[in-house]
Amino acid sequence: MHIGVLGTGVTALTIGSKLIQQGHEVMLGSREEAKPSAVAWAKDAGQHALYGTFRNAAAFGEIILNCTLGLASLDALQQAGAENLKGKILIDTANPIDRSTGVWKLTVCNTDSLGEQIQRAFPETRVVKTLNTVNANVMADPAKLLEMTDVFVSGNDIDAKATVARFLKEWFGWRHVIDLGDITTARGVEMYVLFWHYLRDVTPAQRFNIKVVTS
Amino acid sequence: MHIGVLGTGVTALTIGSKLIQQGHEVMLGSREEAKPSAVAWAKDAGQHALYGTFRNAAAFGEIILNCTLGLASLDALQQAGAENLKGKILIDTANPIDRSTGVWKLTVCNTDSLGEQIQRAFPETRVVKTLNTVNANVMADPAKLLEMTDVFVSGNDIDAKATVARFLKEWFGWRHVIDLGDITTARGVEMYVLFWHYLRDVTPAQRFNIKVVTS
Repeated sequence: MHIGVLGTGVTALTIGSKLIQQGHEVMLGSREEAKPSAVAWAKDAGQHALYGTFRNAAAFGEIILNCTLGLASLDALQQAGAENLKGKILIDTANPIDRSTGVWKLTVCNTDSLGEQIQRAFPETRVVKTLNTVNANVMADPAKLLEMTDVFVSGNDIDAKATVARFLKEWFGWRHVIDLGDITTARGVEMYVLFWHYLRDVTPAQRFNIKVVTS
Repeated sequence: MHIGVLGTGVTALTIGSKLIQQGHEVMLGSREEAKPSAVAWAKDAGQHALYGTFRNAAAFGEIILNCTLGLASLDALQQAGAENLKGKILIDTANPIDRSTGVWKLTVCNTDSLGEQIQRAFPETRVVKTLNTVNANVMADPAKLLEMTDVFVSGNDIDAKATVARFLKEWFGWRHVIDLGDITTARGVEMYVLFWHYLRDVTPAQRFNIKVVTS
């Protein structure tokens, strides 16, 4: 499968490598045509690893993953171009975190979310918010934790969510994918990120996730 | 021990009953001196169950639990009186949820929290935010879930948090109490409540909590 990954940070590189291992062809997209981190990654990851602009990656992918920083996501997606995203599933892993002051805060929350902003800006794209509740190393390898934990999907398109849930299982080995509801439920998973941040500060392992336990 | 519980809703009644079972003397406080739900509860719960105003309950308790609705908490605590809360531990279980429109939203979040507002308003009280991440039935009986899950404490006073962690274990049977840090980390657990709300909508059991899983 051709997969476009927007971003060249840790999340993009980790997910890109995992998808290559699964036999997919992956193009990382960035603001620059040949971002050094993407060039180095492609050299290392083999012939199925490509790089280019946001536009190139979006045009290349049958499915697109947004792995840019939340603050840059809307701009990156505009550069990718609505025509290259139209009709496609966009897996949005980003969090709208402002780290500028040292104290984490969200740039959008409570009555709106980045996931909703993206869905509004690209109404013909099937946005599925997921994976933003875990670090890159957990996203791509959830079985490394001591127990299987949960990951969540939010989106307006039920078929797109079912497809993404299947991909999360096939690509990364997730077992429990909880459908929270429409894209407004992205507020929940994005607002959780502040809690995640405090948990990370007191979790020795740094690699962790939550499991929902019922009665 | 004499315990003052502010509030007469489900959380207050459930916690109050559990504390009575543990051999404590409990006074529920409300806006009215004899709120019908508190009167009925006291009649049912036996001779160690008392009721009165917010002021009565705060004066009575060696330790105070805020089990009012988040929107009413600051006002209830003002009625309780700073002099009756001075030097005491205040366990704050409330969430600042505005349910007026049908879509849940928080009245304070991201750069502040109800826990911080209470600590600022009552600087001589030792505020510990906890239990707000679970429903009343889980708060008072975490062992009813299929596995032991986690509960969190946030507060500026380390001794107060250690005392509360001990009480959570003794009173209710919690085993894992995670200290998130100072009272600003109340932002994390309060913002989680929107996520909790969406999870509850898709969790058949209605009784649930999260467990932090590491590697």
